[in-house]
Amino acid sequence: MSVIKVGFVGLGLMGGSLSIALKKTSQSYYFIGLDHNKEHCAQALELGLVDEITETLEALKQCDIIFLSIPVDGIIAVTQKLTNLAPECTVIDLGSTKEKISLCIPKEIRQNFVAAHPMTGTEKFGPKAALDNLYTNKVVVLCDLEMSGRHQEKVAKKLFTGIGMNIVCMGAKEHDRHAAFISHMPHALSYALANSVMKQEASNSIIALAGGGFKDMSRIAKSSPSMWEDIFRQNKSNVLEAINAFQSELKKCQKMVENEEWEALNAWMKDANKLHDIL
Amino acid sequence: MSVIKVGFVGLGLMGGSLSIALKKTSQSYYFIGLDHNKEHCAQALELGLVDEITETLEALKQCDIIFLSIPVDGIIAVTQKLTNLAPECTVIDLGSTKEKISLCIPKEIRQNFVAAHPMTGTEKFGPKAALDNLYTNKVVVLCDLEMSGRHQEKVAKKLFTGIGMNIVCMGAKEHDRHAAFISHMPHALSYALANSVMKQEASNSIIALAGGGFKDMSRIAKSSPSMWEDIFRQNKSNVLEAINAFQSELKKCQKMVENEEWEALNAWMKDANKLHDIL
Repeated sequence: MSVIKVGFVGLGLMGGSLSIALKKTSQSYYFIGLDHNKEHCAQALELGLVDEITETLEALKQCDIIFLSIPVDGIIAVTQKLTNLAPECTVIDLGSTKEKISLCIPKEIRQNFVAAHPMTGTEKFGPKAALDNLYTNKVVVLCDLEMSGRHQEKVAKKLFTGIGMNIVCMGAKEHDRHAAFISHMPHALSYALANSVMKQEASNSIIALAGGGFKDMSRIAKSSPSMWEDIFRQNKSNVLEAINAFQSELKKCQKMVENEEWEALNAWMKDANKLHDIL
Repeated sequence: MSVIKVGFVGLGLMGGSLSIALKKTSQSYYFIGLDHNKEHCAQALELGLVDEITETLEALKQCDIIFLSIPVDGIIAVTQKLTNLAPECTVIDLGSTKEKISLCIPKEIRQNFVAAHPMTGTEKFGPKAALDNLYTNKVVVLCDLEMSGRHQEKVAKKLFTGIGMNIVCMGAKEHDRHAAFISHMPHALSYALANSVMKQEASNSIIALAGGGFKDMSRIAKSSPSMWEDIFRQNKSNVLEAINAFQSELKKCQKMVENEEWEALNAWMKDANKLHDIL
């Protein structure tokens, strides 16, 4: 069996979990990792997430598949340096935004590239956060596939299907609007919720009463600020649109409580319950 | 071993799970249930959550302990009818609001009464939603205990400790403000989030991309509207204050994204991360 060399730029939750998932599907993968955080490199080696650490992007260019599992601004920076790739090399980014990334990929490697967004994650980061089954039964969005090479499209689809993911294809522009509503704006809410409670005078005794609802809603407020700063920057207009849409619903709720329109409030909550039929 | 008769007014998630928990701590309990929903009565019997169904409140007055595990407006209505209780009888309500309930308990049964709020639950309801371990390692708030009889205080504390709960005592007024921030306002956010996404034209294809973040944040948007209408009504002013506090944080976030103040946004997210040290 010939060895398939897989490179990871970024040895955090996403890259680390992907290594675990891929290893389960085949013994023929050989994993090479690159991360500017030396501690993460050592941890990834120790945890067996990679077979080898390299210190240069150049060394990764020999790989059959290269994953860019780093924050979205970093993805754009790295793609500018990924020149002179073999025609069969497949580069897959796992960023949470897609439009700016898709636009910034140098023409000469555009066919090598597949823009992907696995709709999964946790609030944790670093190789120690890597999880078994992070990708199983989750959706991965593949964007602007018409701009990828047919070989690269095939490699990416086989790979994501192999680790149990459900593939959804759409344009990068559409993806970014969807992601703003389903992921980016909810992160803004969670950060705002955590801050609004922690700024109360009695915050500690309030938080001591936290049940499952608050824990679930504030979980992603623990996510990495540097990662999310990049996402909010790259998806600014969609995020603002989604926050506006949310605010208008919350204002409705506020007005109904203020004006004691209980029947209308009940109907509004019943509308929200319909999510149950979809999700 | 003498039998301890326990009555449940309300055979839903809270009452049903409490029966399961109590049964594990002692064989001496005999459970009598009352619920206006006949189907729920039949299910509770079938699931073994109660030993007997009764159709009148009068029949429950023979119980040693009576739990009021119904929506908060119902609790107030039932307490008005709970007259002529034996001096040793303990009535415990499990409502999510406490001030209006504590104020409305008729004087003649005030000593019989313990106002409790277990900080646990799920978005589901009815006896089939009853869970093993719903109460284990969760907090229960006991309010205005100085107004309960010493016997009743002792019974309630022993009972909640017995099923693995951690007791926190505070005044009903304080409880209601705390609960608004940690539970009631987050429910309003979750309902608003679900509605804001479902009202988008492409809502189905947006929701098809839902990962863990959205699922966690929208879970409680599936909660019972009639139960939550009562809570928002009874805790109106605190809920409005908590929504205001949240809105002011979200507006900060919105302004920072609009004005591209990325450093400030990063610092604001780092503030939210501090929740990690507390929760």
